[in-house]
Amino acid sequence: MRDGLPGEARRLARLTRVVMKAFELFGYERVQLPALEYSEVLEVGGRHLDPHSVLRFVEPETGEVVALRPDMTPQVARMVSTRLAEAPMPARLCYQGSVLRRRRERARNNQQIPQAGIELVGVSGPDGDLEVLQAAASALTASGLAHFVVDLGHSNLAPSLLRSVARDRWPAILDALALKDQAALARRAQRAGLSGSALAALVALPELHGGGEIWERAERLLAGTAAETPARELKSLWQVASSHRVGNEVTIDLGETWRFDYYTGPMFQLLAEGPGLPVGSGGRYDALYARFGTGHAAAGCAIDLDNLAWACRHGNVPESEPRRVLVSGAPADSARLLHGLRAAGIAAAPAPEKGKMAYARAWRYTHVLELASDGAVLTHVADAAKRTLQADATEVARALRSSRLTQQKDSE
Amino acid sequence: MRDGLPGEARRLARLTRVVMKAFELFGYERVQLPALEYSEVLEVGGRHLDPHSVLRFVEPETGEVVALRPDMTPQVARMVSTRLAEAPMPARLCYQGSVLRRRRERARNNQQIPQAGIELVGVSGPDGDLEVLQAAASALTASGLAHFVVDLGHSNLAPSLLRSVARDRWPAILDALALKDQAALARRAQRAGLSGSALAALVALPELHGGGEIWERAERLLAGTAAETPARELKSLWQVASSHRVGNEVTIDLGETWRFDYYTGPMFQLLAEGPGLPVGSGGRYDALYARFGTGHAAAGCAIDLDNLAWACRHGNVPESEPRRVLVSGAPADSARLLHGLRAAGIAAAPAPEKGKMAYARAWRYTHVLELASDGAVLTHVADAAKRTLQADATEVARALRSSRLTQQKDSE
Repeated sequence: MRDGLPGEARRLARLTRVVMKAFELFGYERVQLPALEYSEVLEVGGRHLDPHSVLRFVEPETGEVVALRPDMTPQVARMVSTRLAEAPMPARLCYQGSVLRRRRERARNNQQIPQAGIELVGVSGPDGDLEVLQAAASALTASGLAHFVVDLGHSNLAPSLLRSVARDRWPAILDALALKDQAALARRAQRAGLSGSALAALVALPELHGGGEIWERAERLLAGTAAETPARELKSLWQVASSHRVGNEVTIDLGETWRFDYYTGPMFQLLAEGPGLPVGSGGRYDALYARFGTGHAAAGCAIDLDNLAWACRHGNVPESEPRRVLVSGAPADSARLLHGLRAAGIAAAPAPEKGKMAYARAWRYTHVLELASDGAVLTHVADAAKRTLQADATEVARALRSSRLTQQKDSE
Repeated sequence: MRDGLPGEARRLARLTRVVMKAFELFGYERVQLPALEYSEVLEVGGRHLDPHSVLRFVEPETGEVVALRPDMTPQVARMVSTRLAEAPMPARLCYQGSVLRRRRERARNNQQIPQAGIELVGVSGPDGDLEVLQAAASALTASGLAHFVVDLGHSNLAPSLLRSVARDRWPAILDALALKDQAALARRAQRAGLSGSALAALVALPELHGGGEIWERAERLLAGTAAETPARELKSLWQVASSHRVGNEVTIDLGETWRFDYYTGPMFQLLAEGPGLPVGSGGRYDALYARFGTGHAAAGCAIDLDNLAWACRHGNVPESEPRRVLVSGAPADSARLLHGLRAAGIAAAPAPEKGKMAYARAWRYTHVLELASDGAVLTHVADAAKRTLQADATEVARALRSSRLTQQKDSE
């Protein structure tokens, strides 16, 4: 569980606002989900929550098992299926908040991940998939990220090739696929009884990762297998996503294994340099709403805001530092100036008695204003440039706005 | 644990932004605190967390007791005393997030309370108290609330009168004081051995609530008692707060009992009509940082955003509904318009095939745009007024901006 220090927390809040604003422009309305959720809501698709990945406990009064949500999609499904059950579909909803995941590798392994995401409920097929992709891509573009890749997969691709294989053999086979270990994949699939074109296709999946050039080989390999249908579905999504220029590049990974077992169709990851992990991911989960008694088709995505922040840093996305003025002077004069600057939308606080410049640097003030009986001196903290002016808030605000070193977007 | 539905969640997010922005204008920098905290951090002032009011559990791997924070002030104290230990004081920090409190009255009684607050660390005495009051009041004013009252109390007032009374008798006496039950107060205090001017002063405290007119009687009653010092401290804060016009009115409640036992000086509540509970509260806690090995004086406040939203509704604070346009037409034309509107900062989504107007009303769209081969018709959802115009995003954006029914603040 990580603290967000000053500066870092401000940047994360800005990023969250920008991403949510992009979702809202696509017509998605903000909802707020509780941090604690009944465990049964989160156990989607008949899957029990992995006790190693979710923090659960018994609520003392009710005896109900509650969990710190590892994912908000099932919570939105609960909301749409209950409190919004009367509303006409499709529903377009967006959310932000933290999810809690536990990592096995570390001793203290609770990880709070800030997310922002969307849910498109009641639109099936490629129209919905494309919209979700476009909204996710517009959020990344709005954040200032100049280069990112959309990597497409399909949750039914490998499973369709395993139809003849006993369910209890799947995990070992899919583990090998996830690791792209073709030798283990071939060995395990053969031992489980897979043969012929299905075996050949499965073993080739790890190689079928790249741009449009993979389709020729993929179509030849998958011809006549049960994977033809999901591959065709994925290709048509790849085509529209490419022609709509979603992201700088749209790649395909036919060997992608599903991450949450509620995915039922195309899935995607948004990749950017820096974090080494996706900045976002999503896909289609048409079976999820059956669990809540409604049969809605659904697709969605979530942006990992920590990873996006990382990618933005890595990509040198320019940041606007807010103007912050430290005011030093006689109490009455300072109070008047502080009030005037705040009224003009400029952050201002009184200076400590000693060590003004060091204090200003430590707490990210951009300017120090020293009031005297005959005027004021405005010092720019970064380069120590000084300017003499009247001790008047309007005058100071104007000087701050005109300075080349304080140019920034005020609109945020 | 409550869901925030569309509309409601948007209003809460707006309010949170406005309050945080007001804090930032006072020089407070945003920090982010984890939702889970080690129990020992929250056990401030030697107080053990009340198992009935805090949800705690044992973290499986580490065996440490963690809690869903009921309050963020101790978390900020931890952060300032550890990761920010090298920074020069004073620290001005603001935060937002949910705290979890459990109410005994209800069967399912976990309550997630959205808060935004500030911490002023390293400024002692009235200067700090006044700054915190002013920042809190400016946040309420920024939210649009036209009328609110600042109610001042002092955490040492009643305790100072009980110095001669055994500690185990305090809870019963303070309970009677909290209920303003003067008969029980007198009976319990007498039985505990209190007499003379301290007894007379204590029994009178519930009556010493109101405006400046209470001071004459208060000063007479408290003269010569240990409560003279805190009363004098409170009066001087009342004087500066009144002269600085913090809130529409500044009242005093000498019978106020402390709520968190870490308060060590003046405390305040921000009261507005509607919620029946304070929209904010705060005060001084100069002993809290001793617990973390640093001796900083500190004061702060937290705004209860649910209660503030309630007060704003009650006070008919005008709300700006965002423009949201539902676009109906041939797919290619719709796609072009949707893209253009979003680029112009207007939320837009494709219309369902049937029941456009009912759908628009259900999901809070302000306008429906129907594209045809020879132009477009823009319908205002609330009054069904129609307007014919070119099927061009710039044209539509201009029409939306000029409409009297879509006037709103875009700056948010």
